Amino acid sequence: MEHGDIWLSSLKTDGPQAGFKLAVKLSRMGVKLTQPSDEVRSHLRAAYEQDSAQLMAASHIIAIHFQTVAAANNWWR
Amino acid sequence: MEHGDIWLSSLKTDGPQAGFKLAVKLSRMGVKLTQPSDEVRSHLRAAYEQDSAQLMAASHIIAIHFQTVAAANNWWR
Amino acid sequence: MEHGDIWLSSLKTDGPQAGFKLAVKLSRMGVKLTQPSDEVRSHLRAAYEQDSAQLMAASHIIAIHFQTVAAANNWWR
Amino acid sequence: MEHGDIWLSSLKTDGPQAGFKLAVKLSRMGVKLTQPSDEVRSHLRAAYEQDSAQLMAASHIIAIHFQTVAAANNWWR
Amino acid sequence: MEHGDIWLSSLKTDGPQAGFKLAVKLSRMGVKLTQPSDEVRSHLRAAYEQDSAQLMAASHIIAIHFQTVAAANNWWR
Amino acid sequence: MEHGDIWLSSLKTDGPQAGFKLAVKLSRMGVKLTQPSDEVRSHLRAAYEQDSAQLMAASHIIAIHFQTVAAANNWWR
Repeated sequence: MEHGDIWLSSLKTDGPQAGFKLAVKLSRMGVKLTQPSDEVRSHLRAAYEQDSAQLMAASHIIAIHFQTVAAANNWWR
Repeated sequence: MEHGDIWLSSLKTDGPQAGFKLAVKLSRMGVKLTQPSDEVRSHLRAAYEQDSAQLMAASHIIAIHFQTVAAANNWWR
Repeated sequence: MEHGDIWLSSLKTDGPQAGFKLAVKLSRMGVKLTQPSDEVRSHLRAAYEQDSAQLMAASHIIAIHFQTVAAANNWWR
Repeated sequence: MEHGDIWLSSLKTDGPQAGFKLAVKLSRMGVKLTQPSDEVRSHLRAAYEQDSAQLMAASHIIAIHFQTVAAANNWWR
Repeated sequence: MEHGDIWLSSLKTDGPQAGFKLAVKLSRMGVKLTQPSDEVRSHLRAAYEQDSAQLMAASHIIAIHFQTVAAANNWWR
Repeated sequence: MEHGDIWLSSLKTDGPQAGFKLAVKLSRMGVKLTQPSDEVRSHLRAAYEQDSAQLMAASHIIAIHFQTVAAANNWWR
């Protein structure tokens, strides 16, 4: 991601599954903006992907973002 | 889950119990999209299912998703 | 709980105290659906009931479900 | 608390400070309903009251309940 | 804080920055009402202020209260 | 940040990406107001930026603030 890149232009998605995918992306961007080094994140990923507590922490953050995305899409009603 | 599979077409459910079941599914998908390997997840599951702190973490994530699903269904009023 | 049992037919309750009780139930069901073995859960309960951090984790999950139940009941206004 | 006691008849309070106090009560009731023994809870309290991480966990739960109570009172506008 | 002191008369603030400050205050009051001893809290503070995990826990609680305060102020729109 | 500086005049942003950036800022301000020393925070940052659990904690807080900012902007609909 170069400075000035657009990575989030809208919270609107084509249905809930795409919304869930966006929630995953937002969760990762929260980490990326805190630790911008691709190298450090790759290194850490190798560890946490084998750690169920951290996988749950990831799922937890996704759940929060999914609330936001779902509300933005009026729950795709 | 093959690439392109539809696993979430709607947040609407037939009542709150089906909504709770969907919340459980969303919670698991958050883990699955972070760690796609069925083998690794199976391995981790054996451990965390015996760990009350992690069972509570799972229940916590389910609770957040249940908020979303309940709102999407107008609380099944 | 046998397969197909109805355990959650409505989020409506007779007032906030019954709503809180339902939130406790939902919190436990989140654990039960993740670890269905009564035996394992009984075993774990003996430990976590003596652990203040885990009691707080339980109270935390109850709080999230109580938000949902309260909203479903229009806060019993 | 005897079985059948009424401890929560309404989420309405006289202003936000009373609402915060109710949030503290709800937080404690979440623990109490999970661990009903006064003796065990007293014993645990002595420890967690000296532990900043657990004090923060308590404050966290209070914050969630305060959201609920504030919404129930239309934010005392 | 003496018994009966008024420390929270309204959730209304003059803009979001004052709202954030109120969220910090609510976060601290959640700790204070759980551990009323100024001496114990001062002692704990010396430790947790050097602990990034606990600083994040504090920031987390502030975030939840800020949601409440922002909603109470209709997001200062 | 000098005393009296304005760092948050509005929750309105030009689109969701700027909103996410604001959520990151709010997350950091929650830490800064709890630990005002730039020196201590710099010291802690060096450690937590290498710790995946703490990076997730940061992402978690960002997610909560993003809910608030998104609601304030009517989800940029």
